[in-house]
Amino acid sequence: MSTIVLLRHGESIWNEENRFTGWADVGLTAKGLAEARAAAELLRCEGFEFDIAFTSMLRRANKTLWTVLEEMDRMWIPVHHSWRLNERHYGALQGLNKAETAAKHGEAQVRIWRRAFDIAPPPLSKGDRRTAIVDPRYADLEPGALPRTECLKDTVARFLPYWHSTIAPAIQSGKRVIIVAHGNSLRALVKYLDDISDEDIVEVNIPTGQPLIYELNDALKGRSHRYLGDAAEIETAMHLVAAQGGAQR
Amino acid sequence: MSTIVLLRHGESIWNEENRFTGWADVGLTAKGLAEARAAAELLRCEGFEFDIAFTSMLRRANKTLWTVLEEMDRMWIPVHHSWRLNERHYGALQGLNKAETAAKHGEAQVRIWRRAFDIAPPPLSKGDRRTAIVDPRYADLEPGALPRTECLKDTVARFLPYWHSTIAPAIQSGKRVIIVAHGNSLRALVKYLDDISDEDIVEVNIPTGQPLIYELNDALKGRSHRYLGDAAEIETAMHLVAAQGGAQR
Repeated sequence: MSTIVLLRHGESIWNEENRFTGWADVGLTAKGLAEARAAAELLRCEGFEFDIAFTSMLRRANKTLWTVLEEMDRMWIPVHHSWRLNERHYGALQGLNKAETAAKHGEAQVRIWRRAFDIAPPPLSKGDRRTAIVDPRYADLEPGALPRTECLKDTVARFLPYWHSTIAPAIQSGKRVIIVAHGNSLRALVKYLDDISDEDIVEVNIPTGQPLIYELNDALKGRSHRYLGDAAEIETAMHLVAAQGGAQR
Repeated sequence: MSTIVLLRHGESIWNEENRFTGWADVGLTAKGLAEARAAAELLRCEGFEFDIAFTSMLRRANKTLWTVLEEMDRMWIPVHHSWRLNERHYGALQGLNKAETAAKHGEAQVRIWRRAFDIAPPPLSKGDRRTAIVDPRYADLEPGALPRTECLKDTVARFLPYWHSTIAPAIQSGKRVIIVAHGNSLRALVKYLDDISDEDIVEVNIPTGQPLIYELNDALKGRSHRYLGDAAEIETAMHLVAAQGGAQR
């Protein structure tokens, strides 16, 4: 049996502004930083320690991880970054306000783009300056690998190879692992760990900054999981995530 | 020809308190953090970019590096930590005030401990709680590898294998390298790069938080070097480092 910790980054500037973020590289708010510190405090109080960390290429996840490691006196452990842990790519919606988009296209359409398992938002056009094509952090990717939009199914497909090639072997070697990533890359992992159906994963919401503890069996599938934080607070946070697509918010 | 950047961590709490630090894991002062930010600003203004970073296991170096990477929007590059980049181990002097130690043992003796190339301070005794023996960050070292004191010669001897095995190959593969480390581990490197004699290295002082740019030839030895910052400010900082052993300070 192994234990791993999943953590969604703290609130980002675009979470707060209710905008679609995806691969846009926005920082944490002051609240997001405080969430990261609180997560570290919870982990420390429960006696967690880490030997290795995995995170995305995006600063809201990196900063959350660094804050946790600094608070836990683990700044010296190896940190592995991969684009495969990035948030789901939100295509042409990146940067748009969720409520305005709902008002324009209808809440039903936005809900589909946000939540349908296998329907992606419209892609970024090739010339769109929001493509990451010139971003040095993705310079080593094969040209075709860089997404211009994704549905959750696509995120699962690009996340899992990294799980199998890199994270799972670290767990199997006895290393204590923390993964700091994003709402949808963590949903991709949770779907795999718990064999959640394409239909049911749509209803799973992972709140920001709340350590999610997974106990894994010998096949590295989920045996049980729990959040460390206050249950009522987590419930509220999950509902907020679910409600973000509404035109009224 | 290759270019690498060396950076000594910003002022630490024990730099400020004028205490021998060595492997003791103390944090940065507010001034130290500001130095790290200023170093990043200088590097950015001069167009530096990095593909990979090397640092020690100690938080004053880690925090300096993270601050630089955050300011330069490079939080996503690989960071390699090694005890071989740690500060020189200061043995039984760790934690003692430099001026008090000079008053007790004489300035000449302290100067020898601080500056002689091949005379180490008294070692930590095996039972001393300041030994790093139970520190999880050194748990993977062979038992005999953990120093209980070091002279600069010892620091050179344990630094260079890491240079040859890990840092030099990264430079040779075309990666743009930053090394954020400590006064003495950087002196060990500079001694090697510029073939500085055992006598002359004693007079080399590396100030905190000032990016030191090394141009290397094809054999990865020093062709030339320069500090990025204000020349007068650097001169003053070097003299302060040299003067720290005095009883009057």
